[in-house]
Amino acid sequence: MPRHPRVAASVESMPGSVYSALAHRLATHPGETYPLHVGDTWMEPAEGCRMGDLSVAEHPGMHRYATPQGLPRLLELAAARIGERSGSPCTPAQVLVATGATGALGAIAGALIEDGDEVLLAAPYWPLISGIVRSFHGRPVPVPLIGEAGSAAAAVELFESRRSDRTIAIYLNTPNNPTGALMPGERLRSLDEWATRHDLWILADEVYEDYVYSGEHVYLRSMAPERTFSVHSFSKAYGMAGNRCGYLAGPPEVMGELRKVSTHTFYSAPTAAQLAGIRALEGIADAWLAAAVERYRELGRAAAARLGVAPPGGSTFLFLDVADRLDERGLEGFLEDCVDEGLFLAPGPSFGPYPTHVRLCFTSVEPQRVARGVDVLARLLGR
Amino acid sequence: MPRHPRVAASVESMPGSVYSALAHRLATHPGETYPLHVGDTWMEPAEGCRMGDLSVAEHPGMHRYATPQGLPRLLELAAARIGERSGSPCTPAQVLVATGATGALGAIAGALIEDGDEVLLAAPYWPLISGIVRSFHGRPVPVPLIGEAGSAAAAVELFESRRSDRTIAIYLNTPNNPTGALMPGERLRSLDEWATRHDLWILADEVYEDYVYSGEHVYLRSMAPERTFSVHSFSKAYGMAGNRCGYLAGPPEVMGELRKVSTHTFYSAPTAAQLAGIRALEGIADAWLAAAVERYRELGRAAAARLGVAPPGGSTFLFLDVADRLDERGLEGFLEDCVDEGLFLAPGPSFGPYPTHVRLCFTSVEPQRVARGVDVLARLLGR
Repeated sequence: MPRHPRVAASVESMPGSVYSALAHRLATHPGETYPLHVGDTWMEPAEGCRMGDLSVAEHPGMHRYATPQGLPRLLELAAARIGERSGSPCTPAQVLVATGATGALGAIAGALIEDGDEVLLAAPYWPLISGIVRSFHGRPVPVPLIGEAGSAAAAVELFESRRSDRTIAIYLNTPNNPTGALMPGERLRSLDEWATRHDLWILADEVYEDYVYSGEHVYLRSMAPERTFSVHSFSKAYGMAGNRCGYLAGPPEVMGELRKVSTHTFYSAPTAAQLAGIRALEGIADAWLAAAVERYRELGRAAAARLGVAPPGGSTFLFLDVADRLDERGLEGFLEDCVDEGLFLAPGPSFGPYPTHVRLCFTSVEPQRVARGVDVLARLLGR
Repeated sequence: MPRHPRVAASVESMPGSVYSALAHRLATHPGETYPLHVGDTWMEPAEGCRMGDLSVAEHPGMHRYATPQGLPRLLELAAARIGERSGSPCTPAQVLVATGATGALGAIAGALIEDGDEVLLAAPYWPLISGIVRSFHGRPVPVPLIGEAGSAAAAVELFESRRSDRTIAIYLNTPNNPTGALMPGERLRSLDEWATRHDLWILADEVYEDYVYSGEHVYLRSMAPERTFSVHSFSKAYGMAGNRCGYLAGPPEVMGELRKVSTHTFYSAPTAAQLAGIRALEGIADAWLAAAVERYRELGRAAAARLGVAPPGGSTFLFLDVADRLDERGLEGFLEDCVDEGLFLAPGPSFGPYPTHVRLCFTSVEPQRVARGVDVLARLLGR
């Protein structure tokens, strides 16, 4: 038992944040820095939906608690958008507003997982999902797809090979962080059928749905809404990561269970962030978003070209295998060489079994600075 | 296993929110309503630390992620305040900024609890703590103190009678929500000694520390900082409940473990809310707070006088035993009679084994409306 001074074994065995280990180096680097390890944007949000645009004159009580499920107007707008985009009708009662996709996935994990239950994670995956599953005493099981899943049937086979009698759910993130790839509709359909056959829940992390540069994002919700949770965020779509506001849609029967967990981990999403989200969904940020998509598309293409890799299909990331540039110090040595030149990258192992990969975000700082950081990396890679 | 369509048994067995069941009645009541069931304030926050006062011109990047532990300036200010008030030194590394006290206590519970571990809750307790313990698969064990713990020795005896070999921690909330009582220093010292003897962690929920009308708030941290987590909030102190920002201080050795959980349940507290918190701790809201204390004190005294009970020593609540007014419909019937007149109260069982109690918040709406709501209650109680 975790009596003083011990803590829970499940948490103790979790790795700490790789980012925070870098914070000191970042703060003390003498020259220009390129913090491309962070998934964020240099753009300020659209005018009209910044915090400074929200006044108590217009929104009396805007610093009070919101209703735990979310402000009614936001639930209504989110449900309409989800229904329209996925083609599968969605009611406000099926929506939960949360402290970003992190809070949303936490509420799902908390509601579903019993001790030792396993969640299959399509890898590479968004790093926090692994820790979210572990925080609620589950076991994350990576299913590495890069270079392995050439077809829908191969992908299903990979998932099947990791399935056990403790498997309760699968997690898919498309458009993908870290690869920038979109999972093809045919593959999603096959995985959906397979998950249905085995009574598994489906967690569809779609926070980059708005950033698609080639191909089409397919909504898992359109296939099996009765078992699918769709996770969305204002953080990525509208440059509001610091607001901590996102939302999810799920089967009506279990939303009350999710609300029990969300109420007890963050109570309600920040009220002002929800007001900003309402403004964004009402259309005030449409032009901002359209412009961001075009800029991000160009930035992704330019970074990929400089590094000699394929341009991303979506999201704001590139994921590179740097195996051929590693010496006896391994990935850590390579990352240190980068840091020596002010360049910060996220290490592959944060995203699954990728000991020789690195991730960079090509929107984390202003474009010229990203370009200089990408140059540093290209030189280190001899490209 | 929670395969589709099942969810985790531990969550399924949790009660849903009593408040949300009332939401429909509140929205459709024809006359004036008195929603005194909510713990919030009618006051807008101090000028200078409202969302509308925060501009991207002054705070570029204020919609980006904050560092997961909290903004460095806020950590510094919070540590200084905690150290000064408790008399036990505190460093920024010992502080975690969270999505309110809810997120803070969630991070503590997540880091400490293994399946089936028990947390002793001094009752009556803040309702969410029970669900927080259960969300992380622990077992909340109420220790009812009202009318039972006349002395420090009696309080220790009550705790000892509930202790088992699965007990890992005790939770104390003072100034208390819902009773408004302050736990005397002598009792805290005895409980602290007893907890130390049994290697228990101590969770000190001190979110009403600024609202003390008589007596003195004693910080548990001053006694056993090596095993104590102190939980604080901007929600109550500065009327910022909707901002979702609070902070906690704990033993340095385990703060990294807490950060693992907070990172995976809400990632970081909202950046703008942290900026508002910085402004508040820098002093811009001092006059607001001093005025709020005086107004709340008067409101508590007036409500107590009208209801014929003792004035609260702190916090913003009164907790009344209405046993002598219940008919065969029990508490539910009484609460419905209240709702028929537009008055909403929180039911006693949310706070522990209190089947004949109700809680009211005397700051949840503007003072005149609170007074009319209190009048409704006084009439129903024949007072």
